[in-house]
Amino acid sequence: MAIDITVPVPSKANIGVFTNPKHDLWLADAKPTVEEVKSGETLKPGEVIVEVRSTGICGSDVHFWHAGCIGPMIVTGDHILGHESAGQVVAVAPDVTKLKPGDRVAIEPNIICNECEPCLTGRYNGCERVLFLSTPPVDGLLRRYVNHPAIWCHKIGDMSYESGAMLEPLSVSLAAIERSGLRLGDPVLIAGAGPIGLITLLSASAAGASPIVITDIDENRLKFAKSLVPGVRTYQVKIGASDEENAEGIIDALNDGHGSEPDAIRPRLAIECTGVQSSVCSAIWSVKFGGKVFVIGVGKNEMTIPFMRLSTWEIDLQYQYRYSNTWPRAIRLVKNGVIDLSRLVTHRFTLEDALKAFDTASNPKTGAIKVQIMSSDEDVKGANGAAKE
Amino acid sequence: MAIDITVPVPSKANIGVFTNPKHDLWLADAKPTVEEVKSGETLKPGEVIVEVRSTGICGSDVHFWHAGCIGPMIVTGDHILGHESAGQVVAVAPDVTKLKPGDRVAIEPNIICNECEPCLTGRYNGCERVLFLSTPPVDGLLRRYVNHPAIWCHKIGDMSYESGAMLEPLSVSLAAIERSGLRLGDPVLIAGAGPIGLITLLSASAAGASPIVITDIDENRLKFAKSLVPGVRTYQVKIGASDEENAEGIIDALNDGHGSEPDAIRPRLAIECTGVQSSVCSAIWSVKFGGKVFVIGVGKNEMTIPFMRLSTWEIDLQYQYRYSNTWPRAIRLVKNGVIDLSRLVTHRFTLEDALKAFDTASNPKTGAIKVQIMSSDEDVKGANGAAKE
Amino acid sequence: MAIDITVPVPSKANIGVFTNPKHDLWLADAKPTVEEVKSGETLKPGEVIVEVRSTGICGSDVHFWHAGCIGPMIVTGDHILGHESAGQVVAVAPDVTKLKPGDRVAIEPNIICNECEPCLTGRYNGCERVLFLSTPPVDGLLRRYVNHPAIWCHKIGDMSYESGAMLEPLSVSLAAIERSGLRLGDPVLIAGAGPIGLITLLSASAAGASPIVITDIDENRLKFAKSLVPGVRTYQVKIGASDEENAEGIIDALNDGHGSEPDAIRPRLAIECTGVQSSVCSAIWSVKFGGKVFVIGVGKNEMTIPFMRLSTWEIDLQYQYRYSNTWPRAIRLVKNGVIDLSRLVTHRFTLEDALKAFDTASNPKTGAIKVQIMSSDEDVKGANGAAKE
Amino acid sequence: MAIDITVPVPSKANIGVFTNPKHDLWLADAKPTVEEVKSGETLKPGEVIVEVRSTGICGSDVHFWHAGCIGPMIVTGDHILGHESAGQVVAVAPDVTKLKPGDRVAIEPNIICNECEPCLTGRYNGCERVLFLSTPPVDGLLRRYVNHPAIWCHKIGDMSYESGAMLEPLSVSLAAIERSGLRLGDPVLIAGAGPIGLITLLSASAAGASPIVITDIDENRLKFAKSLVPGVRTYQVKIGASDEENAEGIIDALNDGHGSEPDAIRPRLAIECTGVQSSVCSAIWSVKFGGKVFVIGVGKNEMTIPFMRLSTWEIDLQYQYRYSNTWPRAIRLVKNGVIDLSRLVTHRFTLEDALKAFDTASNPKTGAIKVQIMSSDEDVKGANGAAKE
Repeated sequence: MAIDITVPVPSKANIGVFTNPKHDLWLADAKPTVEEVKSGETLKPGEVIVEVRSTGICGSDVHFWHAGCIGPMIVTGDHILGHESAGQVVAVAPDVTKLKPGDRVAIEPNIICNECEPCLTGRYNGCERVLFLSTPPVDGLLRRYVNHPAIWCHKIGDMSYESGAMLEPLSVSLAAIERSGLRLGDPVLIAGAGPIGLITLLSASAAGASPIVITDIDENRLKFAKSLVPGVRTYQVKIGASDEENAEGIIDALNDGHGSEPDAIRPRLAIECTGVQSSVCSAIWSVKFGGKVFVIGVGKNEMTIPFMRLSTWEIDLQYQYRYSNTWPRAIRLVKNGVIDLSRLVTHRFTLEDALKAFDTASNPKTGAIKVQIMSSDEDVKGANGAAKE
Repeated sequence: MAIDITVPVPSKANIGVFTNPKHDLWLADAKPTVEEVKSGETLKPGEVIVEVRSTGICGSDVHFWHAGCIGPMIVTGDHILGHESAGQVVAVAPDVTKLKPGDRVAIEPNIICNECEPCLTGRYNGCERVLFLSTPPVDGLLRRYVNHPAIWCHKIGDMSYESGAMLEPLSVSLAAIERSGLRLGDPVLIAGAGPIGLITLLSASAAGASPIVITDIDENRLKFAKSLVPGVRTYQVKIGASDEENAEGIIDALNDGHGSEPDAIRPRLAIECTGVQSSVCSAIWSVKFGGKVFVIGVGKNEMTIPFMRLSTWEIDLQYQYRYSNTWPRAIRLVKNGVIDLSRLVTHRFTLEDALKAFDTASNPKTGAIKVQIMSSDEDVKGANGAAKE
Repeated sequence: MAIDITVPVPSKANIGVFTNPKHDLWLADAKPTVEEVKSGETLKPGEVIVEVRSTGICGSDVHFWHAGCIGPMIVTGDHILGHESAGQVVAVAPDVTKLKPGDRVAIEPNIICNECEPCLTGRYNGCERVLFLSTPPVDGLLRRYVNHPAIWCHKIGDMSYESGAMLEPLSVSLAAIERSGLRLGDPVLIAGAGPIGLITLLSASAAGASPIVITDIDENRLKFAKSLVPGVRTYQVKIGASDEENAEGIIDALNDGHGSEPDAIRPRLAIECTGVQSSVCSAIWSVKFGGKVFVIGVGKNEMTIPFMRLSTWEIDLQYQYRYSNTWPRAIRLVKNGVIDLSRLVTHRFTLEDALKAFDTASNPKTGAIKVQIMSSDEDVKGANGAAKE
Repeated sequence: MAIDITVPVPSKANIGVFTNPKHDLWLADAKPTVEEVKSGETLKPGEVIVEVRSTGICGSDVHFWHAGCIGPMIVTGDHILGHESAGQVVAVAPDVTKLKPGDRVAIEPNIICNECEPCLTGRYNGCERVLFLSTPPVDGLLRRYVNHPAIWCHKIGDMSYESGAMLEPLSVSLAAIERSGLRLGDPVLIAGAGPIGLITLLSASAAGASPIVITDIDENRLKFAKSLVPGVRTYQVKIGASDEENAEGIIDALNDGHGSEPDAIRPRLAIECTGVQSSVCSAIWSVKFGGKVFVIGVGKNEMTIPFMRLSTWEIDLQYQYRYSNTWPRAIRLVKNGVIDLSRLVTHRFTLEDALKAFDTASNPKTGAIKVQIMSSDEDVKGANGAAKE
């Protein structure tokens, strides 16, 4: 792909993808205006203006649109969606030295307080006053231009904007790999083969997990997983089976059909990417004594778990909320070819076609893994072309 | 207390405290017989014979008697109870070099396989072929004489047999302190002021947790906790209140009544010693972002937990099952005066009065913390006398 | 001690304790002037002005005076010393909400960039652009008034200013306890009974290390250690003995004279507080297989260590540089009575007598542990009186 | 390769490769004799007899031959070398259930006591009474038949004996990867491209280290490294350059020639595989604040290190001695294709040609990476043939 290193001249109007408490979804003018971009007058110290070139649709975007809330986070007015983005710097505040116009960047969609205990101890995902873009009431990144602190814009060099946008879901997965303590040669279960499950599969494989078994209820997703990481073993979750029965199936798949032999192994670590109770419980029943179930997936407020199994098998239950300090690591892994995110983007639309993009992302029949919205028809065509190669 | 260093001459008949699937509890002849003790003929390589001098009654002993099982562990025949014991070595197999007759020892009530992965990786509490004394079908320690591998008999020097027997519940607590990662200066919640809760309080205090809040539904237990560790803060759990409300009360107590101030702190770690769902959930609601709820308590097979709170606050849920490698540490702490277990034994009975001892231990009105069964009337009188000093 | 909660009216001139490359030490006018304090005109956003009430002299202060440098940190002009201080807030910038005039605070003597990797990962002691007060060219705290960011002024409630100032060396020790992984019941060696060694002794004892042995070449310091923590075992380092011989002596002391018995124990952790090669090496020879030598002490640029012993015994060598996130923990421990720093201050002087204070601190014959410089004669008298109680 | 699953009939005489304090190296009869193998009379409970099919020569074997000792481990009589072996079970003791004649196994060359603290805590490499094969006075594996406990014979399925023998050096490397805490996306330095350095390169790459730089003084070894792991960056150590200068070169190579740019990275972890002081020190100077230098290499008894750099940059220095619990993980990684050891064996000889094998292994001009000694000419030919494919 040819890499654009010229400094872009802002010309198009700034528009964004909005939703509201009535579950509407529409395109409308967004801030900053193209005139404000040109003048740079809205730049606060430390900020840059980024022309957003590619943005992925996350399940949470669809959820805010359809349900109006995720737990305590509620859409109360007109609200711009989107938090998986990469783009190009078009203006920088005078005090910014680490970025210049023309730089290609991925956006880490948070602004932190630097004063609370989570911030000072390196777990800024727990910042008590965080502004997380696209979580109400903070507007998201599904617009053409956005002001953002330079410190949260990470240079991506010649990586495609598409992959740059995918660094956000990769960050979720890397945070899980890091905090879960996955080690080279660990037998690992990945529960769920949706976008996060698949990225976690790529990450776990890159980290040397072996063997890996991935589960899903959808056979096609398991096939896709197998095409991504040929060595992965798959288990199609049986609806109606008990959690223990599905756990047996998982162990059997992990052992290539030898799950009942005396030296059969169990996962040391399960990374749960669905948030569904039966999946979490099957994971608990499958891991070994002293193992861990690490939950990325979100779900209902309450969940019933096999308490005595956790107790007598000393199984750790751990959870992940967003990420801290993952972008530099994610960029190294993608740039050095350790993780290849390019096959996960299955559908691309222009910003003007954002509503179609959301329809595609929210319709299971499309088979979409990751839908991205790009700033121009050229970008869509270029990315589609690159994907075919 | 005068320390007995003479080699005792076995003279009394060996009797044990038995239960069975019909929930009977009785005294009867036990193995090895006093003649076998004298001849040493039953000694296998590596074994010693211990005259048990003091044995604590654990909640699990009462549960095996009353309920006939704990989860998958079922009383199927005549079964000797007891696993918290200290005593004196009266005979050793010829190949045993680390112990000699007359040695005072605490008994670690397990025998491991040394071959499975948990054994080889230092977590022998997960040994796949463990023999755990008093867990059916392996007989327990509530008898006068018992054969046991020398490696699982730990010398206690001049520590009282009473404290020696208390090393077993202390081991549970030390395993929790170790694996939970409690650190000097951590604000800590201890949920439950029963025997394990109180020993955990002593341990957490010795480890420099600060401040500590302990909870219970019983005001007297909280008073007892306060008398044990004067600096501890207490919260009486409100029956009928929601888990969130009890969590607020816990935080308020932790902050000495200033729980609603902006700089109020939350526990970094909660050590749950009840196994009751509402207590586990209150603990979850009380800990801080990135905190941990560490569960020692056992309870029902299933439990409903606030999943999304765990997820969005990145709260680790961890469990403890028995212990590994705790005795040497426990002995150091007690011998060097860092932890004083002596105040926790509230009732003492002779082996002949074991049924009264079980009645006392299983009747909440007695206010018993720890009931111990001793080998002789002299031992009971001696211990009662020492306790009054 | 009566606690001063009135808002002090600045009246005295601001003076500071200066040194320079010529090794002079003198008192002179310092910034901000008392007029600037009264007007508050020098306050930048987020800042407060603190009237410094008590400041400890650190070995590094003496070293900057005598040697003009510590490694790469060189005194190049007139330079104010001091970084162990507590005082009272006398003015706050309009945007400061967490502090108000009259608040009693301990000063964390660093200002960090919040942008580099160490800052974002919670290890801000490695901040690439840190301003550390008293490290050239950043002036220190040995003056009457100082501007400082509110975020680095920690409320100490009714703790004495003397103890408030001691939170800085306590922070060094707490960072070591935390990062070294010291756990309840660990046998621990503390090498060196100077101020940091003694504070580390208090901290290790509070964390439940057991047993503890402390070493020094000076018998009086060992006696002082014993008076601070009666249970500690002591070993007077033999000048001229080999490192292995001193290690044997350490092990013997740790085992109360039974160092050659088969079940003698070795330290799992040694905390090295001298930075002297022979002490580091004796620590290495004394710890057990898989143990750790954690070095707080600083010394020469190069050191020769027993490489093959470290290798064949898998001994970790770890180092500490300053601290991160220790103040809140330190304040909890002192306020809740877990650690009592009051006995460590052996000499007190007024700011006007600062030169005498430095003479005392730098003269080994004075037996000084910690020398503090206080803002007024009243403070000195009050603190001396409190110490006698 | 065709896999031999028939039960072999012992026929050849048992011979072994011996050395002695006079630095002789010769072939002679070894125990058990072929008659003893056939009768099984020497089998103790738990033991099997293995026909050794492939054994690698380790640097320590050459060292025992040439120097007669490694540190405190001294050759005092006729002594069989070799500890990197795989073979086929030809007889089993009656109580052995996990193995049967015909099983293909890799030999973990240690027998542990199961009683000391390192054994019970899962770090049996520190076993106080370990018998480590080939470490005097325990004979090694360079013979045709050997008795060994079944527990230390790990089934390798259809893996080649050559790779099975390589599991021993892989174990060293896996222990380092595990204990060093290497994580996905860590920038890593591997110092030294000898056999252990190269296996560590394979392991670090499999664990997702990125980027990786490897060093050596020999350009050809760096080329070989590059052919093994194309993405690795290389730095040829400059003889005569200072440690700091070599560190600069390492950083420059890690950053693909951009080592002096503001966003250049440093290794978070250096794995030192030479044991040479200048290499250890260059590693220390190259890692980042808070980084780690993990030393596998062994060398002189003493070493001089840049103490103040370690201190002010909080660099951990950690060491590895042998391994614990690595074989099951190693087998998973090789069987599942995550790590391919086959290219590292550069020379193969029959047992009868063992002296030539040692000459090749000890002569740097041969360019040998790993020399293996095989039980028969057929095995050598088969392996050479497989290597060419």
